[in-house]
Amino acid sequence: MTYARGVTAMPDTVELIRAKREGGRLADDDIRWLIGSYTRGDIPDEQMSALLMAIYFRGLDAAELHAWTDAMINSGERLDLDGLTAPTVDKHSTGGVGDKVSLILAPLVASCGAAVPQLSGRGLGHTGGTLDKLESIPGWRASLSNAEIMTVLGEAGCVICAAGAGLAPADRRLYALRDVTGTVESIPLIASSIMSKKIAEGTGSLVLDVKVGSGAFMRDLDSARQLARTMVDLGGAHGVRTSALLTAMDTPLGHAVGNAVEVEEAVATLGNQGPDDLVAVTLALATEMLRLAGLNADPAAALADGRAMAAYRAMIKAQDGDPDAELPQARHRALVTAGADGFVTSLDALAVGTAAWRLGAGRARKEDPVSAAAGVICLAKPGDAVTTGQTVLELRTDDAGRLDRARAALDGALTIGPEPPPRVDPVIERIG
Amino acid sequence: MTYARGVTAMPDTVELIRAKREGGRLADDDIRWLIGSYTRGDIPDEQMSALLMAIYFRGLDAAELHAWTDAMINSGERLDLDGLTAPTVDKHSTGGVGDKVSLILAPLVASCGAAVPQLSGRGLGHTGGTLDKLESIPGWRASLSNAEIMTVLGEAGCVICAAGAGLAPADRRLYALRDVTGTVESIPLIASSIMSKKIAEGTGSLVLDVKVGSGAFMRDLDSARQLARTMVDLGGAHGVRTSALLTAMDTPLGHAVGNAVEVEEAVATLGNQGPDDLVAVTLALATEMLRLAGLNADPAAALADGRAMAAYRAMIKAQDGDPDAELPQARHRALVTAGADGFVTSLDALAVGTAAWRLGAGRARKEDPVSAAAGVICLAKPGDAVTTGQTVLELRTDDAGRLDRARAALDGALTIGPEPPPRVDPVIERIG
Repeated sequence: MTYARGVTAMPDTVELIRAKREGGRLADDDIRWLIGSYTRGDIPDEQMSALLMAIYFRGLDAAELHAWTDAMINSGERLDLDGLTAPTVDKHSTGGVGDKVSLILAPLVASCGAAVPQLSGRGLGHTGGTLDKLESIPGWRASLSNAEIMTVLGEAGCVICAAGAGLAPADRRLYALRDVTGTVESIPLIASSIMSKKIAEGTGSLVLDVKVGSGAFMRDLDSARQLARTMVDLGGAHGVRTSALLTAMDTPLGHAVGNAVEVEEAVATLGNQGPDDLVAVTLALATEMLRLAGLNADPAAALADGRAMAAYRAMIKAQDGDPDAELPQARHRALVTAGADGFVTSLDALAVGTAAWRLGAGRARKEDPVSAAAGVICLAKPGDAVTTGQTVLELRTDDAGRLDRARAALDGALTIGPEPPPRVDPVIERIG
Repeated sequence: MTYARGVTAMPDTVELIRAKREGGRLADDDIRWLIGSYTRGDIPDEQMSALLMAIYFRGLDAAELHAWTDAMINSGERLDLDGLTAPTVDKHSTGGVGDKVSLILAPLVASCGAAVPQLSGRGLGHTGGTLDKLESIPGWRASLSNAEIMTVLGEAGCVICAAGAGLAPADRRLYALRDVTGTVESIPLIASSIMSKKIAEGTGSLVLDVKVGSGAFMRDLDSARQLARTMVDLGGAHGVRTSALLTAMDTPLGHAVGNAVEVEEAVATLGNQGPDDLVAVTLALATEMLRLAGLNADPAAALADGRAMAAYRAMIKAQDGDPDAELPQARHRALVTAGADGFVTSLDALAVGTAAWRLGAGRARKEDPVSAAAGVICLAKPGDAVTTGQTVLELRTDDAGRLDRARAALDGALTIGPEPPPRVDPVIERIG
């Protein structure tokens, strides 16, 4: 084998990979060509994954990221929401444990006069995504045609449904590739993945919920800020009014972690029985969404007086779901009890998420089903007083064989001390 | 899409990619598993290319590199040369423009009493590899069975032939992947690729010719030293006495660059009509090979008295070639003349290599044929006095349509000044 310079088998792609590898910039035309060719299958996975790893190390500057995101948007169709009279506004969360905010927030903001087109993917989380959670409601359909999306938006003011295959298909391929090649954790790649879909979705405004902490993708505040700033700038550059809230994800949001159990908690919250942290995050996001949409409305009032609940029920019905149906219940339950008297000082989000995943609430592969009933109920949260033997966690599953490994994940996840920990506002800061 | 931590679709491979990406070490078992699985096709190309790019950035430490090379060797068979009475010694060059040293060196060292088993790949160089060059000799066969290899070694004392598919098959797959994914230029990957094949080949000693300069894979002395040191250590750790010479590759070695034209120059050198730089590099490598092999012989004498030529003719005949046959001649020739009076101060190796490649002497894809007759003859070299209008380069090709682009590659490649440049010893230093 001769290692000669200047001669390569596929000059264009290899030259571009090498340029990025050496820290160079990719020209707009080259980026368009790369994304277009990859989406059409003209560039093989092994070349794209090498390029993605080079991008992991070298990054993309603002202009490259703009072109990269543009190319992803232009790989497919864009939804046209111009027929709506209400201002459109959406929210995207980077994902956390117990994050059922969308189920409450979309109808809440809709009930305040905005149109909320929330098109989601399924992802590979500790629990299912928002679509998986809603699918625990009998009859509810995640897949809607573009015409159906407009109808549901007209009837309920909000829609939560699957993003169609036509929306940013480049991201579909790139995300699947990143998932198996260790190239997920790159800020420009995350930002372009999220923003390409949200921009293609056609929303006028967008609020990002960037989670920070052990149960979040971004573990530290600095990288969360950087991701938030990158996405806010990308949105603005594409004509979408965008801002971000950084919110805490060291402990699960609310009490329920799973699919059906999170729907139950969301419905309780719409009925004014929600846990404080979940309500606080939801109202902060709602306030920000309404601000961007230019609507002068009080989301707390809309939650309190039942308007948000009415919008939720209308949305579920418009997508053929029965909001009054009983949700699946797990066949097996197991309890974790407090080992001491005192105050819960921490309950690790990642550990709870991993336990829920092991109980069947999440998927390991895109094509796997999730268990609707599986999950963890956090009966005590940081700050709560507990006594020895009191139940602090409840594990639920349809498969009793999963309990042991789920329990193991929770080992040391909950700590008890003599004093309550300092109260922490789950909303850390706003970037926009 | 939810970006949750701790949950991945293919835990093992992705975890290992991420570990290396973050600068971690791979355990011996993991490396064995990765190389074995990839060679069997159980790890897809897109995962391996992402890992290779991570290795490009993070490197492999000495223990990882040892395990990686071991795994590549163990992916196939090892040649058993124990039946030979003469000490075995081989040479490997990292590749340069006009590098026809093997054709002279193997028979020269054999004529001094060593057995030289030179198993080669074809590569993607500016010109063909050693095998392609020899294939311009009518009848000559590159593919030999293991039994034939032993027979030729017994008859001629040396053999230059294709490495069988059974030797380090992992490298075959990895090299093809690196070539299209911009991951060739990594010292541990280069070192393991070269050394796995040479160790599997079964040679007792090995001298590496690490080329440095514009026409070489290693452009600067520091990286050439690092590559040489890495390979020398790897060889020693595997029981192969190994040393390296760093040799200059800023200008082509000798006058001929191509395939048949290089065979002609090699034969001329065996007949004591060789250019100084080619003779100097060949004798330095021969001296080093004989030293490692423990043989007390004078290679200059073996070249001068025709013993080397006799071994060459025996080797060609033993592989069914006719050493007296006329070699293919190009149908078209074009000349480049000196634009000034003075001394040639530089003749850029990369430019000449690129021109030869454009004339048809090299291949762009593994499966492409090379043109036996194409190439460039450097009629003037650095230090030579020239006058305006004198022919300095001769371009040869069977396809006249290739001449223009080849000429373009040579633009500015040869410079002329009023004073000769300082004389440079082509042998820079020894590492071992």
